[in-house]
Amino acid sequence: MTTSATDMPSTWLGLSEDHPFGLQTLPYGVFDAGSGRRVGVRIGECVLDLAAACARSRRIDAGLFARGSLDELLAAGPDTWAAVRGEVRTWLSDTNYRTALEPLLVPLEDVTMCLPFTVGDYVDFYASEHHATNLGRMFRPDQEPLTPNWKHLPIGYHGRSGTVVVSGEPVWRPRGQSRRPDGEIVVGPSTRLDIEVELGFVVGAPSPRGRAVPLDAFEQHVFGVCLVNDWSARDIQAWEYVPLGPFLGKSFATSLSPWIVPLEALQAARVRPPVRDPRPAAYLDDAATPSWGIDIDFKVALNGHVVSHPPFASMYWTGAQMLAHMTVNGSSLRTGDLFASGTVSGPGRDQRGSFIELSWGGTEPLILPDGTTRTFLEDGDEVVISATAPGPDGTMIGFGEVRGRIVSEPATAEGEAP
Amino acid sequence: MTTSATDMPSTWLGLSEDHPFGLQTLPYGVFDAGSGRRVGVRIGECVLDLAAACARSRRIDAGLFARGSLDELLAAGPDTWAAVRGEVRTWLSDTNYRTALEPLLVPLEDVTMCLPFTVGDYVDFYASEHHATNLGRMFRPDQEPLTPNWKHLPIGYHGRSGTVVVSGEPVWRPRGQSRRPDGEIVVGPSTRLDIEVELGFVVGAPSPRGRAVPLDAFEQHVFGVCLVNDWSARDIQAWEYVPLGPFLGKSFATSLSPWIVPLEALQAARVRPPVRDPRPAAYLDDAATPSWGIDIDFKVALNGHVVSHPPFASMYWTGAQMLAHMTVNGSSLRTGDLFASGTVSGPGRDQRGSFIELSWGGTEPLILPDGTTRTFLEDGDEVVISATAPGPDGTMIGFGEVRGRIVSEPATAEGEAP
Repeated sequence: MTTSATDMPSTWLGLSEDHPFGLQTLPYGVFDAGSGRRVGVRIGECVLDLAAACARSRRIDAGLFARGSLDELLAAGPDTWAAVRGEVRTWLSDTNYRTALEPLLVPLEDVTMCLPFTVGDYVDFYASEHHATNLGRMFRPDQEPLTPNWKHLPIGYHGRSGTVVVSGEPVWRPRGQSRRPDGEIVVGPSTRLDIEVELGFVVGAPSPRGRAVPLDAFEQHVFGVCLVNDWSARDIQAWEYVPLGPFLGKSFATSLSPWIVPLEALQAARVRPPVRDPRPAAYLDDAATPSWGIDIDFKVALNGHVVSHPPFASMYWTGAQMLAHMTVNGSSLRTGDLFASGTVSGPGRDQRGSFIELSWGGTEPLILPDGTTRTFLEDGDEVVISATAPGPDGTMIGFGEVRGRIVSEPATAEGEAP
Repeated sequence: MTTSATDMPSTWLGLSEDHPFGLQTLPYGVFDAGSGRRVGVRIGECVLDLAAACARSRRIDAGLFARGSLDELLAAGPDTWAAVRGEVRTWLSDTNYRTALEPLLVPLEDVTMCLPFTVGDYVDFYASEHHATNLGRMFRPDQEPLTPNWKHLPIGYHGRSGTVVVSGEPVWRPRGQSRRPDGEIVVGPSTRLDIEVELGFVVGAPSPRGRAVPLDAFEQHVFGVCLVNDWSARDIQAWEYVPLGPFLGKSFATSLSPWIVPLEALQAARVRPPVRDPRPAAYLDDAATPSWGIDIDFKVALNGHVVSHPPFASMYWTGAQMLAHMTVNGSSLRTGDLFASGTVSGPGRDQRGSFIELSWGGTEPLILPDGTTRTFLEDGDEVVISATAPGPDGTMIGFGEVRGRIVSEPATAEGEAP
């Protein structure tokens, strides 16, 4: 990263130029400082209360933030997104606003972050060639690792939006059916509990049923991105997923980072996607209508020990291609729809975005600094996924983190003590 | 059906005893008579405005119906469901209420029915052995028709809740990718557009994340049922569904009947489910904790001509088993979650609940009374699915209908004229 003089204005908060949450980032979230949910924007190690700030500035409709959710801002569309972001940058860089706004900055250590928007439909893609190849080798060892459709369309499926939770929420070890190698069918706590490192795209402006959203309309509909941990129970998944796809192996929990980074913050992080061979159908062909990858470096830590660095720039399909595919059949979009990339895995062993890949199906355990080993997650394990991307003028974009700890299963029936 | 003297009170509306929407049924819906959405209950060929009725009776909290959606009633739970139903039966049978309530009855011909509740997650099961066997034979002719897991668990997957629409909404023919028999990959309007006749279960009372809902708690959570047409594009589905399941072949539209029939109305229609062999795992085993099938007769009409009579009593898995399975991993339930049975097909040729089965993959066209033939749906075709079940004392329970007409695809990109 360069540290040359920049064109970026600086903030009166006096952040260092390499702070990942300077004026170049300004992600949105919902926080609770003890008196209910409020919409905020992150700057440095503080969150600015946006409803309160709007009430003082009167240049943005405070109604956008009145309900303690990002839903209204998301629905307002790209012109409003740009106007709000521009205004917030002015507030935080022009010292004339300092006296008015400083009392509205709340230290992050004093807040609890909340799920920032109402999740509509949750779609999970499968857009990493390295991940799909690895999983194909393990799940279908007798066949070609990539299914014949994989390079023709971004494969995806619908997940459970009702169990999307914010970073920090506990993850109960799921129970379910699985089939042992000897063929016996057993019911019990998952013994192959895993993570999936993903990027989530948050839909803002809706689209009507019956209309496709082409590649070049991506930025008209997608507001921003967040980090996703798509928790997966591999034993349950392996037994259930033929023929209708993953269900209970995924539906028990999906964790999101609390900060939604606007697409506008990611302009300097855009990268050319890989060459697609074969060339995809016209509605997915970004040679004609460019779409872009994003140069995001993920970091995965298990109990404080970094175990992987998945590179988002290696993804085969872009966010615009996922959106174009998801809507090519005329599916409508709702504000709050969430679509995730699928597990981000690079070509290297230390770039894999799941434990099933890192431990190669459980056959090559990871050795942790305390001398213990891991294949899949044990009760008490905590996984923290974090990420950064290049920002303008040598700055860095922060995404924060998505954190979750595995807790042993509660009682299986209603009415019993947990 | 018997026509003996009944214990059922009669309504002062003077309906004939065999009317499917007498006091034995009383389904809930949301209607618009020109001044916005209102919650109503159907009696005969009228809908009673519930918010207005509650305002006069004061024995039910009118707030339950103030928002023009069933959401509040659904969330209120089984004690409230029973109390409201009991009160409505009193209103409509006790002539003392006639003068007050008659002005609140709106003829059905004067209303437009609306989607009655906010759909949370939509899950689609695959619970008919006849359907799964037929589809397995057609999609995977080189393998056993039922996958090894089929008799061990109710297979299901998440669908798109944002494209669930009410009966009567148009269904645009979806575009998408498919692979021709010669291997060529094409993009265009689906040429194998189909229906799936299903029963939908509507979740009322929520459950927390981390807790399974056992078989015997089914009636604590599920409010009632409706008819579902899960429109399907078989060509898109066949190309996309391996390995992660159906996606765009299903997500373009799912139609619901406007009337939600309470479980309480279906007590006389309960039937013993089929014997399961092998016996399923304890959490699904209804030998110990009885669950029940429902004796619902479906009728499918294409352009006014009845083409099939799928029998719901033939389903392998019950609603209680679907719910127990869906939550065994600790998935939470939200008010408005919808889970559907999967296509209802009986053993007979005229009991199949989809055109891919009725025409055996397009190889055995149906001959319509006008001499034309059908394999899959053509533009302009209208499908009406209706159903009835036995009610108490020889009465009949009506479900109404779910109706949809195929319209040719609109423009594929935003901004173009439709």
